[in-house]
Amino acid sequence: MSSVAIALVHHPVLDRQGAVITTAITNLDLHDLARSACTYGVRAFFVVHPVLAQRELALRVKTHWVGGSGARRIPTREPAMALVDVVASLDDVLVALGGRARVDVYATSARNDERHVTTYADARARLAASERTSLVLFGTGWGLAGPLLDDADVLLAPISGANETGYNHLSVRAACAIVLDRLLGRANG
Amino acid sequence: MSSVAIALVHHPVLDRQGAVITTAITNLDLHDLARSACTYGVRAFFVVHPVLAQRELALRVKTHWVGGSGARRIPTREPAMALVDVVASLDDVLVALGGRARVDVYATSARNDERHVTTYADARARLAASERTSLVLFGTGWGLAGPLLDDADVLLAPISGANETGYNHLSVRAACAIVLDRLLGRANG
Repeated sequence: MSSVAIALVHHPVLDRQGAVITTAITNLDLHDLARSACTYGVRAFFVVHPVLAQRELALRVKTHWVGGSGARRIPTREPAMALVDVVASLDDVLVALGGRARVDVYATSARNDERHVTTYADARARLAASERTSLVLFGTGWGLAGPLLDDADVLLAPISGANETGYNHLSVRAACAIVLDRLLGRANG
Repeated sequence: MSSVAIALVHHPVLDRQGAVITTAITNLDLHDLARSACTYGVRAFFVVHPVLAQRELALRVKTHWVGGSGARRIPTREPAMALVDVVASLDDVLVALGGRARVDVYATSARNDERHVTTYADARARLAASERTSLVLFGTGWGLAGPLLDDADVLLAPISGANETGYNHLSVRAACAIVLDRLLGRANG
């Protein structure tokens, strides 16, 4: 069984028109993804942002909840926020995990394009059989930029409802929760 | 196949100490639950709050995104926020859905207590076979108060990760996404 890390990417991601942008950190993203990660036994949650002031903001939030006054008020938030690691780039994430060769990178996307996607059943089996660390990437804004999808080992299929509404605009907080449940949730849940 | 509605309950819910309280509306809850509902073909998303000023706030948010300037800026938000219906009590939800006798009420809880819970596999089968409207209740704060759990037809099992971390402090935004995916997601997702 692979150990699993997740990363929330603020650059390079897309805007509505498909241009590459950098998004701002959203406080509730940190909380929600940390809590989901903690629930599913994820070992680290990397917040990726190229701007120092934004990384400092994320670290201040973490410090408030890990050892700070937030930890005293809501103690259950501490083990979740302790998983947060704030870095400048995806390269930094890969270095922290032992180098690209030791990591299976899973990208997520809500877009349907020409790329080959992997079903969750296949991804779950791959993850269970792997000895490498599995890193699941989530994009803010309108999703991860193309090069991140191209460089991934696995591109997970877009999430869609049973009745094929065709609506594929989940929040990253919801998408992360669903992806972790599909990859790591109890099979007989 | 049952048609499905969800409700986000702000009263009666519990605080950390188990006392019954009323929570404030969180803007991002409205967006995230509306987007998840729209993805999974949920027919209505009821925001339940006993305080008029809070209901008016929720309606202002909805109006901004349905027909307002938000709809022009992010058109994909409109069909999601159009599902929002703001009411004062759970009774109002049941009236809107044709009366208690016509509704199968599913409650959610992260707590493990003495109550009998239903697995997601069983709940999914029940929902698929039912002709009544299925209403799934989500609690804010520290979860739905006991009477709401007692009065439900089905109490869904707490969500837990595969590796039994024991950590059960998902955000309501994450929990709703996972529950809808388990009940309504594509089986071979």
